[in-house]
Amino acid sequence: ASEELLLAAAFVSDAQYNRNIPFKTSPQAVRLYYLYNHWIMRTVTYFFIFLNLSLAVFEEPAVYPLPFLATSLIEVLCLLVFFGRLTHFAKITPRNVFWKDTKNICIMVAILLSLTDLAIYGALRIYNIKSIRWSRIARPIFLINFAESRQIRRAFRSIRNTLPEITYVFLLFMFSLLMFSLMALKLFGERNLQTAEGLPYFRNYLEIVFDLYVLVTTANSPDVMMPAFDFSSWYALFFIAFVIVNTYIFMSLFLAVVYNNYKKHLKNEIRQLAYMKHRKMIEAFNLLKEEEGAQPVVREARWKQLVKLVAPDISNSHRELLLRISDDEQKGFIDKKSFVQLADLLNIQVITLKIRSHPLGQWMPRIYKSSVSQFLHSMVRHRGFVWTYDAIILINAIFIALDEETPYISYAEWVFLALYIIEILLKVYTYEPRVFFGKNQFWNWFDTLIIFAALTATILNTTLKSTTKYNSQQILDIVFILRVLRLIRIVDSIQRFRVIMNTLINIVPTMLTFGGLTLVVYCIFAIIGMELFHGKIQFFPANSNAPYALECGNPALKDSLFARGKYCKNNFNNFASSFIVLMELTVVNQWHVFASGFANVTAQPAKLYFIAFHIVMVIIIVNIFVSFILEAFFVEY
Amino acid sequence: ASEELLLAAAFVSDAQYNRNIPFKTSPQAVRLYYLYNHWIMRTVTYFFIFLNLSLAVFEEPAVYPLPFLATSLIEVLCLLVFFGRLTHFAKITPRNVFWKDTKNICIMVAILLSLTDLAIYGALRIYNIKSIRWSRIARPIFLINFAESRQIRRAFRSIRNTLPEITYVFLLFMFSLLMFSLMALKLFGERNLQTAEGLPYFRNYLEIVFDLYVLVTTANSPDVMMPAFDFSSWYALFFIAFVIVNTYIFMSLFLAVVYNNYKKHLKNEIRQLAYMKHRKMIEAFNLLKEEEGAQPVVREARWKQLVKLVAPDISNSHRELLLRISDDEQKGFIDKKSFVQLADLLNIQVITLKIRSHPLGQWMPRIYKSSVSQFLHSMVRHRGFVWTYDAIILINAIFIALDEETPYISYAEWVFLALYIIEILLKVYTYEPRVFFGKNQFWNWFDTLIIFAALTATILNTTLKSTTKYNSQQILDIVFILRVLRLIRIVDSIQRFRVIMNTLINIVPTMLTFGGLTLVVYCIFAIIGMELFHGKIQFFPANSNAPYALECGNPALKDSLFARGKYCKNNFNNFASSFIVLMELTVVNQWHVFASGFANVTAQPAKLYFIAFHIVMVIIIVNIFVSFILEAFFVEY
Ligand code: NA
Repeated sequence: ASEELLLAAAFVSDAQYNRNIPFKTSPQAVRLYYLYNHWIMRTVTYFFIFLNLSLAVFEEPAVYPLPFLATSLIEVLCLLVFFGRLTHFAKITPRNVFWKDTKNICIMVAILLSLTDLAIYGALRIYNIKSIRWSRIARPIFLINFAESRQIRRAFRSIRNTLPEITYVFLLFMFSLLMFSLMALKLFGERNLQTAEGLPYFRNYLEIVFDLYVLVTTANSPDVMMPAFDFSSWYALFFIAFVIVNTYIFMSLFLAVVYNNYKKHLKNEIRQLAYMKHRKMIEAFNLLKEEEGAQPVVREARWKQLVKLVAPDISNSHRELLLRISDDEQKGFIDKKSFVQLADLLNIQVITLKIRSHPLGQWMPRIYKSSVSQFLHSMVRHRGFVWTYDAIILINAIFIALDEETPYISYAEWVFLALYIIEILLKVYTYEPRVFFGKNQFWNWFDTLIIFAALTATILNTTLKSTTKYNSQQILDIVFILRVLRLIRIVDSIQRFRVIMNTLINIVPTMLTFGGLTLVVYCIFAIIGMELFHGKIQFFPANSNAPYALECGNPALKDSLFARGKYCKNNFNNFASSFIVLMELTVVNQWHVFASGFANVTAQPAKLYFIAFHIVMVIIIVNIFVSFILEAFFVEY
Repeated sequence: ASEELLLAAAFVSDAQYNRNIPFKTSPQAVRLYYLYNHWIMRTVTYFFIFLNLSLAVFEEPAVYPLPFLATSLIEVLCLLVFFGRLTHFAKITPRNVFWKDTKNICIMVAILLSLTDLAIYGALRIYNIKSIRWSRIARPIFLINFAESRQIRRAFRSIRNTLPEITYVFLLFMFSLLMFSLMALKLFGERNLQTAEGLPYFRNYLEIVFDLYVLVTTANSPDVMMPAFDFSSWYALFFIAFVIVNTYIFMSLFLAVVYNNYKKHLKNEIRQLAYMKHRKMIEAFNLLKEEEGAQPVVREARWKQLVKLVAPDISNSHRELLLRISDDEQKGFIDKKSFVQLADLLNIQVITLKIRSHPLGQWMPRIYKSSVSQFLHSMVRHRGFVWTYDAIILINAIFIALDEETPYISYAEWVFLALYIIEILLKVYTYEPRVFFGKNQFWNWFDTLIIFAALTATILNTTLKSTTKYNSQQILDIVFILRVLRLIRIVDSIQRFRVIMNTLINIVPTMLTFGGLTLVVYCIFAIIGMELFHGKIQFFPANSNAPYALECGNPALKDSLFARGKYCKNNFNNFASSFIVLMELTVVNQWHVFASGFANVTAQPAKLYFIAFHIVMVIIIVNIFVSFILEAFFVEY
């Protein structure tokens, strides 16, 4: 019976957290399943996934170089952990299910490929033959395919479902682009016009296609139009038509297709999750049911044991509350219909509303309830208290904007810090501390963390200054940032702002999924980018004497927009730089300068890398992000 | 009785076209109301509205200068027409309704202001005193406020309803911008960094706010980051955080707010329109009803008279069809419920499906039905016919891309033209011409127009070439464009593309509303822009000897990005140039170069003009446009 209870608890827990892992129901497998879902095991897996991904920081080309032996040992360790996790999973899940699941096959293949690649690379290295660590591109597979990353997989599934429709719109868009390019070639090709850089304008069909693709992203507007426009004002109409059709209509159409599919997919997923949840709860019910008259039910005692197993850390009163809801007629048992709702009931956060007495009130009641103390309480609870501190924040903002060097102002900083600390202390004195620092009290946590971090950093900075007569730049920067962050608090005083901020804060957890998605795409493109462009472009400090320092160390960049814009530090020479370049490409502006720059130092087809990134990241993922914000906003606001 | 019929027909017609004009029910007023809604009257009004707006092309600073006397006479004529239209309206609508309607007051005030301004300007002109024609800014009022522009007014109403929410999000966004600027000042202000142009970097708070506002629009990414990034890679994190919060989250939030309101507003409007329609139909019914037993009904004869009045150009068979639907039990009368549906029934396009015999078949049946003719028919109807012409189009595309100068290729053009004309003739020979050129046969119309325009232009061009040995550039350009447009036809052969294209074609009519909205905003900003920046920036051809030709005739632009980008022709020197500048500002890219350029030649606060335009056009109107595409797509696709 205890084993049945354990199995039922596993089903309920899966239903509660929307897990969907088919596991064997033998007592041993169930116990392994508990271990598999334990938060420590999951954290360890994630830790090694991110360690494996971050290896790129230490491997050649490295931000912080580590010897090859060290990185390969770490990699082997990661792969071992992944293999262990997979073996653990194999012991839980039925054999035929395990081998039918492409996720598991993917992980195994990725482990094998990584080991093979590592061995070959290591062997060649001994003979000083340079080869490519191509298996590094497979590392994001671990992030996607372990059972923990359901959300990221869902996002990828959503993208895959969108692809057919996106493809049709994309083909039509490409057709439009090619037609406009053909027109441009016919209209401008034989005019002998020149660009602002003195290069031939619109002579070569492929170059026109690229230039007009860039215009769709608006990145070379209005430069691409100017030569033709200078020649004749009427030619502006060509570019206006182009922008309306391609930038406005087609790009909106992409958003529409992505958003439409996202909504459709979301509905299906929610329906499917609800069905899974229901089925799991029925299975749990069938395990625990007893007959009461003709009706199958779960008796109160068993129900309580179950809830204790599923949610060991909820209070007795909370559990009693759940029971009163499930067994509302106090019959001593719970029927099927009520039982099924348990998974959702467990997810509802219960805020204990009973007013707890303040610990100080219990500890030294006479002082805490004295008239002075009462006066303090009413003062803190008064609206004027909030207003006073809003005024203090505003004055603080002015002081921050003023010059740092004046001694009065650096003293003022201490005054403000003291005022903020007094505010927090007064609040903790007045309100019950466990309520004040409750789970949903975002702003109280925010305030306290910011203030104490600022206090620590300011003290550290002052100590350094007085002992070594030297400001640590990093600490000073952090002090500045914390000081400004403090001011954000004023937003919370205005009702309408609070609503918007809460919407934004509620979006954050799900936004991590997009973080994961972006990470995967960035990792893949960064690794390819490093193989293609590593070392081609160098950054030299302002007064360097290196040859071609102004051309980023590469004469091919002479007179290029890339060199003139001083973009040399935007290169693929290590993982961190690559990420920053990809971030800039995501923002889109000037991406054609990057594309042309890297094409100049390698070959023209290198532009395809940048076009591919634009299609994947901007046309697909950013649009999914926007769809997501739209949908979240409609639900929240 | 005839007067009642006329009044009822007016109600039904208003219901059919969703018109909502309260008119007096006296027979004389009803007749005037018919005249008021006549398409000639409406077209004349629109003609004078656009004439009035386009006056800016001919007035100082003019694209095509006309003497002041001519433009002011035209303006007075326009104002007289507007006054006449308003007087007409006043005779139709009850007096108290007329004077309560702000639309009418607006038009009257605009007429009075325009006349006063014109008089003052003319008088001062006689004494050679230069003044400003400030009333020109009021001209879009006529476009918005005449009863005909319901759609544009609805769009403005939608914007007005969105404003409160937009404002809150905007304030929060501004707060975030100011906080980030403060951080940037503290972090970078005392590093003595320089921009790529050698200017001081992030020293002045207001300049930082402007630079970071520009970064929100992505227009100066990554340039604004590079100096700090070159100094320390860690500073990239500041800009990444900035872009995520402001560009991605806040800008998506703006779209979400606008889209949310747009949807809400749309629902309300549709509900209200349905209610109005119903009420009007009930009024019409009450005018025509007779008793049939205890039930009020409209008898068939009257109903037919009514339909003949409301829709005089539908065929007898169509009217019989409507009657069969309304009186489905053939009782000889129509009850209230069926009568109310008439407005919607009239809007349904009935496509006559009966296969009409071809006029040639009636005219010379023996030849038309001969076996050769039958073979032609089956050939044209065969799928291979479509495929053959798709292949021809593809070959044509290759020929177009090849060089024009080879004589073979210019002969080939005649062959292709002949092939396309043969195709159209064969189709008209096979299919019934009235069906082939039916209302919904977009592609047939498109093909025929393009081919015959190309034929005309090519013949014209050849004639000019042989007689004057000289290509007319304009005609040649048109020939090129038509030649490429011809290729679009291939899209229609692929089912999935056809679906998307039909969606796009269906969106076009409503997109005209956005054309109107954009026109209003552009007119206002163009007129202000011309007053502020007229003549400050000049365009000189490439090899001009004018002083400061490279600095657009203004030494203040020396070393500016504006002059370096050769943007001199982007100026506010006339109405057409202003429109092109505003279009470029709508596309956003490089708008800060424009803003700084025009601020250099006037004063720094001039940047506010460009920021205001960005907020109005990009944050509000482009987002409404995107919302509109999203919604239209969800309905159509
Ligand atoms: Na841009």
